Amino acid sequence: MTDGLNMSRRLRRTPYTQNVESAGVSGYSIVNHMLLPKGFQKSVEEDYWHLREHVQMWDVSCQRQVEILGPDAGKLIQLMTPRNISTATIGDCYYMPIIDDNAGMINDPVMLKLGEDKFWLSVADSDVLLYAKGIALGSNMDVTVSEPDVSPLAIQGPKAEKLIAKIFGDHIKNINFFKFGWIDFKGTKQLIARSGYSRQGGFEIYLENSKLGSDLWNTIWEAGIEFEISPGCPNLIERIEGGLLSYGNEFTRENNPLEIGLGKFCSLDGSIDYIGRGALEKIASNGATKKIRGVIFEGDKCPTCSLPWSVMVGNERIGQITSAIWSPRLKKNVGLSLIDREYWSPQQAVEVHCQDNKIRSGEISRLPFS
Amino acid sequence: MTDGLNMSRRLRRTPYTQNVESAGVSGYSIVNHMLLPKGFQKSVEEDYWHLREHVQMWDVSCQRQVEILGPDAGKLIQLMTPRNISTATIGDCYYMPIIDDNAGMINDPVMLKLGEDKFWLSVADSDVLLYAKGIALGSNMDVTVSEPDVSPLAIQGPKAEKLIAKIFGDHIKNINFFKFGWIDFKGTKQLIARSGYSRQGGFEIYLENSKLGSDLWNTIWEAGIEFEISPGCPNLIERIEGGLLSYGNEFTRENNPLEIGLGKFCSLDGSIDYIGRGALEKIASNGATKKIRGVIFEGDKCPTCSLPWSVMVGNERIGQITSAIWSPRLKKNVGLSLIDREYWSPQQAVEVHCQDNKIRSGEISRLPFS
Repeated sequence: MTDGLNMSRRLRRTPYTQNVESAGVSGYSIVNHMLLPKGFQKSVEEDYWHLREHVQMWDVSCQRQVEILGPDAGKLIQLMTPRNISTATIGDCYYMPIIDDNAGMINDPVMLKLGEDKFWLSVADSDVLLYAKGIALGSNMDVTVSEPDVSPLAIQGPKAEKLIAKIFGDHIKNINFFKFGWIDFKGTKQLIARSGYSRQGGFEIYLENSKLGSDLWNTIWEAGIEFEISPGCPNLIERIEGGLLSYGNEFTRENNPLEIGLGKFCSLDGSIDYIGRGALEKIASNGATKKIRGVIFEGDKCPTCSLPWSVMVGNERIGQITSAIWSPRLKKNVGLSLIDREYWSPQQAVEVHCQDNKIRSGEISRLPFS
Repeated sequence: MTDGLNMSRRLRRTPYTQNVESAGVSGYSIVNHMLLPKGFQKSVEEDYWHLREHVQMWDVSCQRQVEILGPDAGKLIQLMTPRNISTATIGDCYYMPIIDDNAGMINDPVMLKLGEDKFWLSVADSDVLLYAKGIALGSNMDVTVSEPDVSPLAIQGPKAEKLIAKIFGDHIKNINFFKFGWIDFKGTKQLIARSGYSRQGGFEIYLENSKLGSDLWNTIWEAGIEFEISPGCPNLIERIEGGLLSYGNEFTRENNPLEIGLGKFCSLDGSIDYIGRGALEKIASNGATKKIRGVIFEGDKCPTCSLPWSVMVGNERIGQITSAIWSPRLKKNVGLSLIDREYWSPQQAVEVHCQDNKIRSGEISRLPFS
């Protein structure tokens, strides 16, 4: 089960790892120095259909929280992101780019506003805690930056609401998309957001107190049997079809938020100040030179994309695919890519050079794939 | 071969990955978002004996370099570490703790001084680049913080010097321990240090320009056949016996440098200023309450340590083991641990609660194990 991955304490287990192992996890990935299950008995394709029809429970503890607490908390977060956070109210989840002085992407967390001076950043795969600590220490801000004992558990799929309401009460139905509320679990107050890394709807419970992990997993599991619940994990087919980006895959510090479709979260009118503002405004005034796009391509099922694949028009390399998979619904291969300006219009014909050394023909597509 | 690990571009390949795969890598770990080979055809035990007698080549590209360049480079690094770096001269490698405002360990890199305003930090498993960037941006320092295209390749074992001298010339014999010099490889100037994550002696080549990776690997491989060269990786038996610590395993942000044997690298006389100085001086004046120690323990071969094991004296939990393995040389299990002050004397009798639910009896030991 753990074959292929050298286990050590450095690759942190989660409060649900024991349950995940009992459920037959087939292997892991590592995100934020922590285990992320990669699959169970079902194939990625079976898992995809199940996620679209029923409900799944995902151990996403690797979405670590960076807690920023204190009088300067809002000020520190605003310095890290071009998104105007002054409009956020308590109970809001804000998806936001975090950028550096070159407007390069450092992360794309979801910010949860818990109080006027208390925020969590639910981060993708980079140590945002260290960036936040560095800025706070360098500029003498009055904040504490820490990683609280919070381990998200995702309930995803069309039957998620019914399942969660059955366990925790109908009041969760009043939580809108990208808002959070509270549930009671065994006498503890726990945060629940209508969010998650799929397009099938659902919730994420931000469990505070890892000792309750196994209990929470089992409680949901037992209540979920009537809804055909299955253990799961972010599904590569569903993620790519849905146009959900992954830090480290689709973009890195080399990319700016305007390239990857996050322009709508960027204040470019000078009304707020943040690190990288000058660089970002300059990029905006020149216009982005490449953009995130889908590519639909023919041929047999493509291999796993573990290094960027060249996207070609004739002899010109016009972009790269960073995540790709066979779509059982579209009966074609689909991939996420960064494409040069001259070629980013939908239906542009391209060729994809896959790492199995096959060249597959395809075309540029809008995202999400329909 | 990659079974058990969900491959994606986010888990970065190295310039040597293709060679490592041709050499029959049996799996990977992830360090700094990058692949670190975990083993080849040999067992950990065969690998251990080979490393002590011959020479091995390790892909340690995951030891990413954080380049700090500019007029304030030295000032920024001094702010991050309690070690006095003003004594370093060009060509020096300095092992150093990096700490936060609570004196908690953020990393333990090797600093290479390339110029008065140019340094590399060769980092363990946390994004020090983001911490350095944060401090620099928060305090408006005149530096550039980046990750250059540098991928270390380690040549370790008693025959390493002969092999490296054969390829690059006898001048490398003049490089002392924890110093670096330069070699010519195909017309490029490359940095070579006498260093490495073993106690068997050797070098690390900090290859600049990943396109040369495969060539460098093959050149060393071919020259190494007469020395019985083998592909390898940091060896868990050798590392534990040698008392080499691993960030994330033996210590985290919860630990301070005085606990983990790095007191000798800490300026505590107020002669230099750095983040966490007040906290560290306070800890020093009270005395550390726990310390890094070895534990030798009986019984059959212990399992892999993927979560901390309690070290007990009677009913009291007096510490935890974080890395452990069977030592074929000592014919006993050996482990690295943090032990409370009252019990940290060598020969203290203890019991170790391993994750296979067996209790093994043992005693506290000095490090390295002899």
